[in-house]
Amino acid sequence: MKEEDLNAQLAELVRLNPQIEGSALVSSDGLMISSQLPANFDEDRVAAMSAALLTLGERAVDELEKGVPEQVTVKGDKGYIILTSAGSEAVLIVLARSDVKLGLLYLDIKNTSKKLKELMY
Amino acid sequence: MKEEDLNAQLAELVRLNPQIEGSALVSSDGLMISSQLPANFDEDRVAAMSAALLTLGERAVDELEKGVPEQVTVKGDKGYIILTSAGSEAVLIVLARSDVKLGLLYLDIKNTSKKLKELMY
Repeated sequence: MKEEDLNAQLAELVRLNPQIEGSALVSSDGLMISSQLPANFDEDRVAAMSAALLTLGERAVDELEKGVPEQVTVKGDKGYIILTSAGSEAVLIVLARSDVKLGLLYLDIKNTSKKLKELMY
Repeated sequence: MKEEDLNAQLAELVRLNPQIEGSALVSSDGLMISSQLPANFDEDRVAAMSAALLTLGERAVDELEKGVPEQVTVKGDKGYIILTSAGSEAVLIVLARSDVKLGLLYLDIKNTSKKLKELMY
């Protein structure tokens, strides 16, 4: 796996959609793999928090019988945080503005997640 | 606030949309207020887990500068768990099947959340 290739995929996702502010790929244990986050974010904290959120999402899906966890979307009044499984060992994080078209965003994320998986495994 | 009125709102939400399997209203500290969940779910565990998920969602929104937390959506391959703020002290939980039309579901949830707030405060 080449770091540049992962970075290029993340950058392409941000480039595709002007409402996307940043993206990152984090390992399931909460460590940053590759990041295209805005400069003002602490990458380590973002990575750790994302892993924690996905872990709790997994517990919820398990307990409420919703099968295999795929995605956690957190909506605030100023935008979205979207965590998507990218294989069993990584999570794609996307930050988007509140005026994003969610349907289009989910499609872009799905495609990127697929490409990242192909690069990683 | 009347328990029957809250229950009636939750039941109406489930009735409106055949893809919704259940709904519940939980206090921010993780205690069940009113429930229309399927019989096989442990209400106390659902309530506690929902509050934990929303708390972590709040931290994420805060840390990633996404304003005031409004909603957490967890997607599994067998369906959705959607947590929505209903005022500052309660959370609306909705369980839906994977074939639900998300746009319609979010509209129904928004309306129900508004009505629940009116009943509670």
